[in-house]
Amino acid sequence: MKYVLGAKCVKCGREYAAVPDLTTCACGGILDIQYDYAAIRRDCSPRDLEGNPDRSMWRYRPFLPVEETTAPPPLRVGWSPLYKADRLAEELGLKTLYIKDDGLNPTASLKDRASAMAVAKAKEAGADTIACSSTGNAASSLAGNAAAAGFATYIFVPSRAPKGKVAQLRIFGATVISVDGSYEDTFELSKAAIDKWGWYNCNAAINPYLSEGKKTVTLEIMEQLGWQVPDYIALSVGDGCTIAGAWKGLKDLYAAGFIEKLPRLIAVQAEGCCPLNRAIQTGQPWQPMEENTLADSIAVGVPRNPDKALNAIRESEGVAVNVSDEEILAAMRLLGRTQGVFGEPAGVTGTAGVKKALELGLIPPDSTVASIVTGNGLKDVANGIKAAGEPMLVRPDMEALLAAFAAHHITPVERNH
Amino acid sequence: MKYVLGAKCVKCGREYAAVPDLTTCACGGILDIQYDYAAIRRDCSPRDLEGNPDRSMWRYRPFLPVEETTAPPPLRVGWSPLYKADRLAEELGLKTLYIKDDGLNPTASLKDRASAMAVAKAKEAGADTIACSSTGNAASSLAGNAAAAGFATYIFVPSRAPKGKVAQLRIFGATVISVDGSYEDTFELSKAAIDKWGWYNCNAAINPYLSEGKKTVTLEIMEQLGWQVPDYIALSVGDGCTIAGAWKGLKDLYAAGFIEKLPRLIAVQAEGCCPLNRAIQTGQPWQPMEENTLADSIAVGVPRNPDKALNAIRESEGVAVNVSDEEILAAMRLLGRTQGVFGEPAGVTGTAGVKKALELGLIPPDSTVASIVTGNGLKDVANGIKAAGEPMLVRPDMEALLAAFAAHHITPVERNH
Repeated sequence: MKYVLGAKCVKCGREYAAVPDLTTCACGGILDIQYDYAAIRRDCSPRDLEGNPDRSMWRYRPFLPVEETTAPPPLRVGWSPLYKADRLAEELGLKTLYIKDDGLNPTASLKDRASAMAVAKAKEAGADTIACSSTGNAASSLAGNAAAAGFATYIFVPSRAPKGKVAQLRIFGATVISVDGSYEDTFELSKAAIDKWGWYNCNAAINPYLSEGKKTVTLEIMEQLGWQVPDYIALSVGDGCTIAGAWKGLKDLYAAGFIEKLPRLIAVQAEGCCPLNRAIQTGQPWQPMEENTLADSIAVGVPRNPDKALNAIRESEGVAVNVSDEEILAAMRLLGRTQGVFGEPAGVTGTAGVKKALELGLIPPDSTVASIVTGNGLKDVANGIKAAGEPMLVRPDMEALLAAFAAHHITPVERNH
Repeated sequence: MKYVLGAKCVKCGREYAAVPDLTTCACGGILDIQYDYAAIRRDCSPRDLEGNPDRSMWRYRPFLPVEETTAPPPLRVGWSPLYKADRLAEELGLKTLYIKDDGLNPTASLKDRASAMAVAKAKEAGADTIACSSTGNAASSLAGNAAAAGFATYIFVPSRAPKGKVAQLRIFGATVISVDGSYEDTFELSKAAIDKWGWYNCNAAINPYLSEGKKTVTLEIMEQLGWQVPDYIALSVGDGCTIAGAWKGLKDLYAAGFIEKLPRLIAVQAEGCCPLNRAIQTGQPWQPMEENTLADSIAVGVPRNPDKALNAIRESEGVAVNVSDEEILAAMRLLGRTQGVFGEPAGVTGTAGVKKALELGLIPPDSTVASIVTGNGLKDVANGIKAAGEPMLVRPDMEALLAAFAAHHITPVERNH
């Protein structure tokens, strides 16, 4: 880890050596991994990166806190596609829009970036068992990445987690504890169990390496844009760890001289659960909220990483925007119909926020925006059907088909041959 | 299309010009695209390919029947990971096993390779509407790839198609006709409608370009293996189009001098629906069967591409092996637990067949096998849960957790700090 200086508490500033099983500061504050940016700048350039044939998050090794001897974990994580979404931009009345489909990671969410990092660090720590709590995606992601690397896993999820995520967990061989309570309850139970049995701790906002994995999403966006910084990067916010990681990646690139300015973040939460955005919007300290949204991955009433998340939004002069569940379902249809991208509710919340921010005049129409889709819609098929409706059912004959088309006001055009 | 000579009927040998809206031969036979392999050999080498930075199926342009001026369709299809599956190989008692996870394509199945090709050809044909029938994956794949490229789609699926696939279709904005009947009924209704309205025809085994897209899966496997040919390539078989495409890719590489020999195919069908394997096993012409398996994507009682499929299995001196639904569910667990790969039932059927072929002594344990996982398990969560079971539900306190662990005979080891 020749570029890693150590870890520093974001609350009290106390510094720690970057041992592989780091958790939080003695004061309870979250740690942040520190790099020697002058050395990175001296040794690496964007050109060096571009020549790297590795199309995974591990192409960014100079920016990652792993030992030089640590092999990349088995599953291929990262280098998800960044689509120029002209058809969607036009519908939204936005100059330029890019969609980063992070639902195409191995377990179908951005969380694979954190899990791959966790697996690498758990191996360095000599652990054989990994545990975490999660609203769902971090859980199934950790289970998959850990299974591929031969770890046992104990996973705590709230019982409301969608069936797709639970099915993944079970298939990956995890011991799954479905907690009959809120995400907060789930987190606390996992904490007690981890303390009791000494498992490698992969709770977000406890393990400081996870956001170092997540930050690769913005490293990729910037490389895929040829290091041309967009005006805004939009993403959904729950726990706060993902936006904190995204911002860390951007600041790393800026500090190492890879990009010349920083974009502004568009932080999007669900109206029914927006404790962090409410803090930004009111200028008051954050307060817990109910978890009242169908976007399960960001239904986090007590965010575990408020300090880093609020700091990221403020430091970037970010835009905080809340969207309704109806706006989230509409964004699912919009991304599917115009771009062929199927995101889960929390996955498309960032894009729903771009639409809303334009409507509210919070961002100008001549902006360039990159919006991250954080999870695949196949994880939550029930809400997919809710968004898009059931198909028409017909008997297998032409008469029935014509009747069904008539009933649905569908009049296909005959093509001249 | 400087390397494309034309199309030739596999039944009567009649030749056609490779126009973009080609369908079947006047005799009813399926067409096969013909290439000038000597010219490919003259102009291209494996080394040229390896230097191509395009990590998608379009890196194989010399082997693809598209105009030089045709842009790749929007979604990034192909270059899915090939994992060396040492942990699974060890459990199976097999020397070397590779798993190709084609569930990581944009709409989560191998069918994206065919759909991307279809979209490219539909554009060349000047079409604005595309239609197909499918057991599910080809449908949702076509809908997604076509939506991203701005086409309207009419999609016919049997009503038994899993919810995940239907949700995708609807989100992608397709007009979905859910047919209350078998796959055969669905196919016939789509055929009648395509004839009536003149839509661009993307039915597999009708449109000869689709298997040219599918063949990229074996082009990739061979490149990812450094052009070292494995003893066997295993995959599930339904309609017959995928195995036909896979074989075409291998023969193309062989004819162009990129590989020095051909592997043998392991063709795997479900016991409850194995008309093609039964023909191989009995030496009799194929006969329709009931569609009696939970692996919906390969529940094809009347395969549309028997000629090419049977030819592929026979020409490769292939192994035909049938697996039960229980063996398919077991393979889902096995791939998840050992490799972190979650496949749908038909997706893991190839791997179930590798296990069965070993058990039956049909392939030697010192073989090298590449097994293709053709679709993501998130498409069929109901069967995922069926395979792996529900998680334990606990109240959010340690006492309840200890009781649940005891009830499930789980005794975590305390780690010494």
